[in-house]
Order: sequence, then C-alpha cells, then structure tokens
Amino acid sequence: MREIFEAELQQIGDDLADMSRLVESAISRAGVALLTADLQLAQSVIADDRRIDQLERDLDERCVLLLAQQQPVATDLRVVVSALRMSASLERMGDLARHIAQVARGRFPQHAMSPLVEGTFAAMQDAATRVARRTTTLLTTRDLEVASNIQRDDDLLDQLHQDTFQSLFSDSWDGTTQETVDVTLVGRYYERFGDHGVSVARRVVYLVTGDFAEERGRPATAS
Amino acid sequence: MREIFEAELQQIGDDLADMSRLVESAISRAGVALLTADLQLAQSVIADDRRIDQLERDLDERCVLLLAQQQPVATDLRVVVSALRMSASLERMGDLARHIAQVARGRFPQHAMSPLVEGTFAAMQDAATRVARRTTTLLTTRDLEVASNIQRDDDLLDQLHQDTFQSLFSDSWDGTTQETVDVTLVGRYYERFGDHGVSVARRVVYLVTGDFAEERGRPATAS
Repeated sequence: MREIFEAELQQIGDDLADMSRLVESAISRAGVALLTADLQLAQSVIADDRRIDQLERDLDERCVLLLAQQQPVATDLRVVVSALRMSASLERMGDLARHIAQVARGRFPQHAMSPLVEGTFAAMQDAATRVARRTTTLLTTRDLEVASNIQRDDDLLDQLHQDTFQSLFSDSWDGTTQETVDVTLVGRYYERFGDHGVSVARRVVYLVTGDFAEERGRPATAS
Repeated sequence: MREIFEAELQQIGDDLADMSRLVESAISRAGVALLTADLQLAQSVIADDRRIDQLERDLDERCVLLLAQQQPVATDLRVVVSALRMSASLERMGDLARHIAQVARGRFPQHAMSPLVEGTFAAMQDAATRVARRTTTLLTTRDLEVASNIQRDDDLLDQLHQDTFQSLFSDSWDGTTQETVDVTLVGRYYERFGDHGVSVARRVVYLVTGDFAEERGRPATAS
C-alpha cells in the first residue's frame, strides 16, 4: 500500500515539474515574441497553453483519486492538498504567459513595447524567466535557497513594475493610448506571474519545513 | 461519525457563504468609493480585506482537518476539495475589490474615472455586485438558475470591459496617462472579478449535477 502511495506521490511531483517546465518554455517564448514582434512564436505560446491546462486537470483528478483511494493523513495529506494549490498557480502562470503572447500577436507587425520601456520589459522578462526556471528547480530539488531566490526575483519584478509607471508618468512619455494600455497590462501580467511563483515557492518551503510564511505584505498595485 | 461529518460540512458551507457576503460588501463599497471618490469607504474596504483572508485560512485549515479525520470519499470528498477551490476564488474576489478601492484612495480627492467612462464603470459595478450577491445566493440555495445568471453577468462584464477599450481608443478620449492606466487596471479588476464568480458557480453546478463545464472559451483580454 505504502509503495503504491509513494509512487503516486512521485507521479504528482513529476507532473508539477512538467507543468513548470511548460510554463518556463511559455514565458520564455512569450517574452521573445513581445520584444521582437515574432508572430509565430506568439501563436505557439497561445496554442500550447492548452497543454498546461490539460496537465492541471489531469493532476487535479489524480490528487482527488489519491485522496479517495489512499486516504492520506498528516504530511502526506498536506502534500496532496499543496499539489492542488500549486497546479492552480502554475496554470495561472501559463495563462499570464499566454496573455503576454496575445499582446505581441495583437500588435504585430508593430512592436508592442515603446522603445522608452523596452529595457524595463526586457529586465522583467529576464526576472520572470528566472522565476519559472527556479520554480522547476525548486520542485525537483526542494532546495530552499532556490525559494529565496524566487522571492528576490519577485521583489525585482515589483520594482520593475513600479518603473514602468515611472516611465508612463514621466514627461518624456509620448506613447499612444494603445501603448499606455499595453504597458499597463503587460506590466501587470509580469507582476502577477512573479506572485504566483512566490506562492508555489512558499508551498514547497512549507512542505519541507512545516512553516508557511504569511503574506509579507500586500502585492504592489498601481494605486 | 456521519453526524459529525455532516455538521462539519455544513460549517464549511456556512463559511463559504460568509466569505461571499464579505466579498459582496467589499465590491459594493469599493464601487461606490470609486464612483463617488469616497476616501473613508475606500479605506474600509482595504482594511476589511484581512477578514476575508483570515476566513480563507480558517476554512482551508478546516477542510484539511476534515480530510484527515473523516477521510471522506466520493461526493463528500469532492465537496471538500471544491470548497478549497471556491475559498481561493472568493479570497481573490476580495483582493480585486481591494484593488479597486486602492485606486479610489490613490486618486482622492479627484474622481479616478473620467466622465467619459463613468457610465461604463457604473454598469460594471452593478454587474459585479450582482455577481457577488448571486454567488452568496447560489452557495446558500444551490439553485442552478442563479449559476446561469452569474454567467450572464460575467458575459456582460466582458462586454463592458471591451467598451472601456472602445472609449480609450476613440477620438473623444482626452484623459491623462493616469486616467488611461486607471481605466485599464480597474477594467481588468472587474473583468477578473466576474471570472472568479463564474468559477465558483461552475463548482457549485458540478457538485449539484456532477457536470463540470469546461472553459467555454478563453477569458477576454485586451489584445
């Protein structure tokens, strides 16, 4: 019985890592599509998001079956419930990558991002890609230092998000309304992407240490 | 044993309805704060969001304890897992109401919304308030007609969200960059609020009928 359970639990862990790898690929391609106005790449991100959604559904189904058939308690139970939570975060990260790709596709053949903010968004893209890559690493190694690094990347994303508003509200901003809208939305997508990465990281830390960090503050908003 | 379980399940249902009532109050006050530039009301929404967050944590803890102690299977198990999902959606709806209140607070004593879009946002506010009120009703009555109405309100929110972009991209738009940013973000908050309401509604429908409607399409985005 225990062997079956361990194998099932391993499978759930593998599925989470698989989802995370797909998210990593999605955000990485979405950012390139955004910054280089690459229509085909944008379309591939949009099409591939269905795979992430499907993985989430499969994983959730497996978690519920495991709860029903094995009736885990204590730590085992927390692992399964956390997996349900993490899959929801990863699915949402996939959606956000898709939203970024949709902006790239919507503006093609133009570049969506005005040159005034391109550097900031390139930095956001780097940070978000690191969040995704580190999330995969964290899920496979459970190395808590990786969790701290995800938190740091998220702090950077929040800072860069504020920088985008600084650009918008500066005298040198001469973008069209469409560009203002795109900076606002894409900035928000990256910021939320980081939040979800932190949420996954906190759950892994909790599973390893038993300590679930409360929200360290409210997510940054534009107000 | 069964009596204890039933009582626990009833408590979880009551907690979800309590969360939903707080969300209803939050979105209703946030919208008034936004449309009338009422600082005190905005601040009350922001402060009260902690109660929703706390209710979510309590409810999740109760669900995990129930899984551990009662080891439910079949429908009972699905009810508990769905409750975990629904509490996450309701918590997020509370966050979105708080974000709207934060915009109202950030612009005070000015009105955040330009007169050009005030009517559209008043309509979004009405629809979002109905979504919240109907979510409470659905959680307490499980009347499936209410779920259809939530879906309809969400469709309306998506339409109104598109209308905000139409206003922004029309020749008559003369708002400041700040106003453009606020319309973009607040529109997105309302749109996501509706999505989460639909997500709760689908889970209730699933619990009642066993039929979980797949995503009927991708959420509307601005791209």
